[in-house]
Amino acid sequence: MLAPDQADRLEVLLVSPRNPLNIGAAARAMANFGFRHLTIVAPFAHNWMEAKSAVGAPDLLREARVCETLAEAVAQCSLVIGTGSLDRRRPEQTILPLSEAANQIRQTIAPEGPANRVALLFGSEKHGLTTNDLSWCHAITVIDTASAQPSMNLGQAVAVCLYEISRIPDSGNTGPGPEPAVFNSLELFPDQPTSEQLDRLAELIEETMDSVNYATRGMRSANGEALRVLLRRLMPQDADLRRIMGLFRRILWQLRKKQ
Amino acid sequence: MLAPDQADRLEVLLVSPRNPLNIGAAARAMANFGFRHLTIVAPFAHNWMEAKSAVGAPDLLREARVCETLAEAVAQCSLVIGTGSLDRRRPEQTILPLSEAANQIRQTIAPEGPANRVALLFGSEKHGLTTNDLSWCHAITVIDTASAQPSMNLGQAVAVCLYEISRIPDSGNTGPGPEPAVFNSLELFPDQPTSEQLDRLAELIEETMDSVNYATRGMRSANGEALRVLLRRLMPQDADLRRIMGLFRRILWQLRKKQ
Repeated sequence: MLAPDQADRLEVLLVSPRNPLNIGAAARAMANFGFRHLTIVAPFAHNWMEAKSAVGAPDLLREARVCETLAEAVAQCSLVIGTGSLDRRRPEQTILPLSEAANQIRQTIAPEGPANRVALLFGSEKHGLTTNDLSWCHAITVIDTASAQPSMNLGQAVAVCLYEISRIPDSGNTGPGPEPAVFNSLELFPDQPTSEQLDRLAELIEETMDSVNYATRGMRSANGEALRVLLRRLMPQDADLRRIMGLFRRILWQLRKKQ
Repeated sequence: MLAPDQADRLEVLLVSPRNPLNIGAAARAMANFGFRHLTIVAPFAHNWMEAKSAVGAPDLLREARVCETLAEAVAQCSLVIGTGSLDRRRPEQTILPLSEAANQIRQTIAPEGPANRVALLFGSEKHGLTTNDLSWCHAITVIDTASAQPSMNLGQAVAVCLYEISRIPDSGNTGPGPEPAVFNSLELFPDQPTSEQLDRLAELIEETMDSVNYATRGMRSANGEALRVLLRRLMPQDADLRRIMGLFRRILWQLRKKQ
């Protein structure tokens, strides 16, 4: 996620969108990823009113800016990126894979930089951005999709683009360093058993093994080692350990009772 | 984009989806990113028929598998990843940022590896995946969203997840860069048991619990769920599974002999 003042420098522009559901979906994706500035260019009045008045429409949709022309809409932006598929076109502009476009955008709106604004343009569901629309763009970004079904739904394309822009890039050597990998269970549940506690469980399991003649005595040390390795690899937590030990104590008790 | 035979090892599972438009959107995102295997778990019959018969529904939607239970749906998968937001929950499973989960998934279905299958689960629009659904998951992945609007639309969440899985990771200066070590066992010992095999072990342990009156019958379903979660979290490998099952079979045999 970007810092709010950084996210506020990105404008999402929908050019003549048709389906009110798609307009709503685009707005929702913006809210999901912390972006607030939506502009609708040359809307179909009826569809736009319907989208805006939908139950549960996010604030940013009701507060969206409406412009009659794209020229007006992008006037204050220093970087304009169009989106689209390339199935039928060879545009003149630079074509960037989404991850590169996202990098460019993040750099342009970096908090330490000048207060540049960026526009990200999405065309209508019917034909995407026109050649004329694209003429306002510094570059075009393309989501890598299957050739059998290249064209994405508008709301989903917005979601994917904003996800990629707000994503923290995988670190190379030069980045801010590796993203704090995974808060896996280890950190969330810091109660890891000690080696001694694991050994106590191992003993209990070995006693059970003996009790049911699971292996000959000659095999015992080999089994013991395998068991030690296994328990460490599985990394049970404290609570697991208590449960498993409870079960094995119960098993042993029953076995002995019946002897 | 992944190679087709790699993409074919990923199954997208929608658990009780409600809105036919969302089902259609999920299928379309799959087609966009080259995935073909969709499973609908416990669908609402009417909504499912409507989604399937929609004009322009992609083939993969009409050919989707329908399962009554999640257990059946994930039976052949060695890695099961749930999706969701964490607003109201502290699940027991490992929580992975989407990029990490995508890495794990790509590794698990790597073409050079054994033919492991992966399931990616999405809950219903109403409440997401339930605690019971999550008990089948090895890990949960979370898309980093704004706290003011954390919950994503189903079709958009599917699009973002599949985009990230099919994305080629940014390369650092030094090649593919450090693969995050999450489930350490996965790379070293690629033979992961399927969900069905884990269930078989769980059954055996439950039989043993019954046999030693470890818990009252009333507790059984709670125990069953806890056991399912535990086994997925511990991630035993094929060989472990065989050893553990061998031990429990032996215990049961001895217990019965003495009855």
